[in-house]
Amino acid sequence: MDYPNGKKSQYSRRPSAANQTMSFSNRGMTLEADINATNTFYREMDKAMIHKKPTPVQIVNVHYPKRSAAVITEGYFKQPSTTDYNGIYRGQHIDFEAKETKNKTRFPLGNIHEHQISHMKSIATHGGITFLIIRFSVYNETYCIPAETFFPFWDNHLNGGKKSIPYETIQRQGYRIPFHYQARVDYLTIIDQLYF
Amino acid sequence: MDYPNGKKSQYSRRPSAANQTMSFSNRGMTLEADINATNTFYREMDKAMIHKKPTPVQIVNVHYPKRSAAVITEGYFKQPSTTDYNGIYRGQHIDFEAKETKNKTRFPLGNIHEHQISHMKSIATHGGITFLIIRFSVYNETYCIPAETFFPFWDNHLNGGKKSIPYETIQRQGYRIPFHYQARVDYLTIIDQLYF
Repeated sequence: MDYPNGKKSQYSRRPSAANQTMSFSNRGMTLEADINATNTFYREMDKAMIHKKPTPVQIVNVHYPKRSAAVITEGYFKQPSTTDYNGIYRGQHIDFEAKETKNKTRFPLGNIHEHQISHMKSIATHGGITFLIIRFSVYNETYCIPAETFFPFWDNHLNGGKKSIPYETIQRQGYRIPFHYQARVDYLTIIDQLYF
Repeated sequence: MDYPNGKKSQYSRRPSAANQTMSFSNRGMTLEADINATNTFYREMDKAMIHKKPTPVQIVNVHYPKRSAAVITEGYFKQPSTTDYNGIYRGQHIDFEAKETKNKTRFPLGNIHEHQISHMKSIATHGGITFLIIRFSVYNETYCIPAETFFPFWDNHLNGGKKSIPYETIQRQGYRIPFHYQARVDYLTIIDQLYF
């Protein structure tokens, strides 16, 4: 949709009848941006309260100029000790990690840190709902992989097994997350099916 | 306890029989440090998975030196849009904010941001357990204030009412959090009483 001033609307990615493919409609957004937009939509609809955690930064030096905001002049990225996303949905604790890969045939497990999986195992033990969201960006397909499905692949790789999960396995054992205009990664529809 | 090398142990704050007051044993630790230590202890005991969220930083410039870690050379503190702490305990979503004041007679509500309270209200609506931890550092007394107790004071102050909660009110309507050697702010004992 072109606006009278000739500019494209920021919403112009809505698929037209002639062009109704997910790969077009979703093109160019990172998985993180899509999930953030989805979570904002869920919050606005009062459907769930789920946020991305801030990137952990070790702050070493801060400069305090007069009459303006403090400036961090030296900082370092720290390894996150948890997953990136958590919150509450239908009274349940939700906790997940999201990764995208450009790989066409498999999801490399090296994308994920051991302490994130330990964290997810603890969340599962404590009764939370925990899962991975994995996007194959080449196909623009996004999958939900329940933690219980994922853990055996992870443990096997720690014990010297395969360092990746084949794309076909994710297609078969994961759940394809639908794309919607506002809930761009509408993972709660899958969570509804799996856990409620 | 002095070590043979004459240095104090980092654990030397454990109260001795002659000196068994909370104010001594707990002296010099910030509320945040105490809560972080408590949460670490809870995780090690596999009692609860509760973390402090990282401080949100807007990263503007990053320098990538050869052969060493990326350095953030310009960043700014962002206002958090949620509370600082969340996680899971006994299957329930836990979400809280912690504040300390040097004030002797009241807790000033200006310590808290409106969006943090909106967040807590949403968490309560979605079935989570949400509360404030408030420390009067002069007395070294730490209280748990359930959100339902706190909201009326907050709403009243937004409508032109008192800008603070008197210390006596917090003593009366809040729950004093016990100090333990490892669980320095043992707030889950209060949560057990109130919600389970």
